[in-house]
Amino acid sequence: METTTVKAFGAASKEADLDQMDIKRRSVTSTDVEIEILYCGVCHSDLHTARNDWGGTIYPTVPGHEIIGKVTQVGEEVSKYKVGDLVGVGCMVDSCRTCESCKMDLEQYCKNGFTGTYNGNEKHLDEQTFGGYSQKIVVEEHFVLKVPTNLDTAAVAPLLCAGITTWSPLRHWNVKEGSKVAVVGLGGLGHMAIKLAKGLGASVALFSRSEGKIEDAKRLGADEVIISTDSDQMKKSRGKFDLIIDTVPYAHDLNPYVSTLNINGTLVLVGYLGDLDPILNSVPMILGRKSVAGSVIGGIAETQEMLDFCGEHNIVSDIEMIKMQEINTAYERMLKSDVKYRFVIDMASLKD
Amino acid sequence: METTTVKAFGAASKEADLDQMDIKRRSVTSTDVEIEILYCGVCHSDLHTARNDWGGTIYPTVPGHEIIGKVTQVGEEVSKYKVGDLVGVGCMVDSCRTCESCKMDLEQYCKNGFTGTYNGNEKHLDEQTFGGYSQKIVVEEHFVLKVPTNLDTAAVAPLLCAGITTWSPLRHWNVKEGSKVAVVGLGGLGHMAIKLAKGLGASVALFSRSEGKIEDAKRLGADEVIISTDSDQMKKSRGKFDLIIDTVPYAHDLNPYVSTLNINGTLVLVGYLGDLDPILNSVPMILGRKSVAGSVIGGIAETQEMLDFCGEHNIVSDIEMIKMQEINTAYERMLKSDVKYRFVIDMASLKD
Repeated sequence: METTTVKAFGAASKEADLDQMDIKRRSVTSTDVEIEILYCGVCHSDLHTARNDWGGTIYPTVPGHEIIGKVTQVGEEVSKYKVGDLVGVGCMVDSCRTCESCKMDLEQYCKNGFTGTYNGNEKHLDEQTFGGYSQKIVVEEHFVLKVPTNLDTAAVAPLLCAGITTWSPLRHWNVKEGSKVAVVGLGGLGHMAIKLAKGLGASVALFSRSEGKIEDAKRLGADEVIISTDSDQMKKSRGKFDLIIDTVPYAHDLNPYVSTLNINGTLVLVGYLGDLDPILNSVPMILGRKSVAGSVIGGIAETQEMLDFCGEHNIVSDIEMIKMQEINTAYERMLKSDVKYRFVIDMASLKD
Repeated sequence: METTTVKAFGAASKEADLDQMDIKRRSVTSTDVEIEILYCGVCHSDLHTARNDWGGTIYPTVPGHEIIGKVTQVGEEVSKYKVGDLVGVGCMVDSCRTCESCKMDLEQYCKNGFTGTYNGNEKHLDEQTFGGYSQKIVVEEHFVLKVPTNLDTAAVAPLLCAGITTWSPLRHWNVKEGSKVAVVGLGGLGHMAIKLAKGLGASVALFSRSEGKIEDAKRLGADEVIISTDSDQMKKSRGKFDLIIDTVPYAHDLNPYVSTLNINGTLVLVGYLGDLDPILNSVPMILGRKSVAGSVIGGIAETQEMLDFCGEHNIVSDIEMIKMQEINTAYERMLKSDVKYRFVIDMASLKD
């Protein structure tokens, strides 16, 4: 298959800083959309993949799965997009399209495994997929999203991962006008969870360990901030919430949060993959029909629904724009949660 | 308030065997139903309360919350029952009736705490409630159930706890024709879970550690028995079930069962109150939107629904009838799971 060479920023090895490199993109097939990347959000997964924190990284690796760009070319069978359209690409660029999950618009749970936007299998070229830290990307039409044009384009980028990751559980667990939602952790995911839950008409609380977050949480739309280290405040919140979106990316005690769920409530983990340590106790779960669940990103149809909703409700991420060349510093700052609340790369800088 | 004295069987202390004693029942108030007890099922909770295994037992204590009897008297405002009716009483004899849960027919999750059939608060007499190991009981009409007359009456008794405890999650998680249900543990709860799930049209598997259960599980209606210690069988069951009813009453590893849930599946604990040790891992939960939940007994309306369903589908418990005087031996056998699958006391023996 013919390819074109484009500039990208990636890691050559586990130890290496990210640096400029050339990668190949496949020629546009009949169902493909070629996109010139304008902006790309910076997700924790980018860093973990670049550094092989989860194992399995194939080098060189080019991260980035919060992609916003303009269509520059379309295959002859592409019907939804034309040259010039503003579009997005999130965490997936392919899936089997035939399994039970895919047929239910749940490509994120594809039984055969979805193809990640980076470090997945580029079946046309038989190599790893390369992500959005690059000039261009070629993506199967089904996995391309229409981006509302009334929003700050750069600030839309984080919706493609941080946004959909919190939107999907809000929708799956039926959050609506009057629902009581709490969010644990105020970072990239947490700040989107607050905005989206509020947009859906819920009353929203933030659990935070520090009083320093109160002002910002309220600015983002939270009705209340509960200091989770204050046992009085935690006691007063018992039995209160229908849904808790827990965005914390490390092991932490879920038991105090489970106690704040109402009857039939669910705590859904979206940020932490690993052992639930300290150990979970079943007593409040059984005596209140409460659930602890997990959720990962969202399906393509649901992502489009979220983008449309954000267009209507004027919701975007709070971002700090960086140049591509600043990515290594940005990773260090991200590790210290020193960003409000998402870095977005201005891909024009890649031409510098 | 006037009282009548009735014969009962109870424990005078934590160390004592159960023995015959006299207890008082309140006179029938305007909304009360007086019931002559014909049969009473024997639940693990009876034993744990008699022996103060959970703490908080008030002595003397009279267990028993799977009660079947005949109405002998009704208060003037009672409209649903008349003398001679076949009725049942389960785990609850009262609740606040005014909280959010009670108003949703979820008395089992009463925000002010439901009144247990034994070791609860008998507000009229200001003493502990006494359960079904007795000749008579007086219960508020709302907490009395109509019992189908086409069934083996004694074998209906366990439906009032073992039945509803498994029915409620089957209904709450929407098990229907074609659903794939698995049951962990084949005891009083497990054997009812199989029968009820099958009755609802689900295909039903039993997870068991021993091949010795295969024949019996199939007789009870299971389509399949998966030997949980056989890693090949467990591997083949991955991603299969919509709902798992886990009836095991002690700490055990949930992770292998979570792996057998399909996308959106739920494992619901109904038998074990305590720490989920070994520790639960969030990876399959997040990557498959799976839930771990708990559930306790069921509401009164739901219990009536279950009894009616059992009448229509000819479902009862598999029981072994005992005399009241055999209760201490029965407890010892129950601790060794030496019963298929529920002891029921013939209360006529209390006259001996």
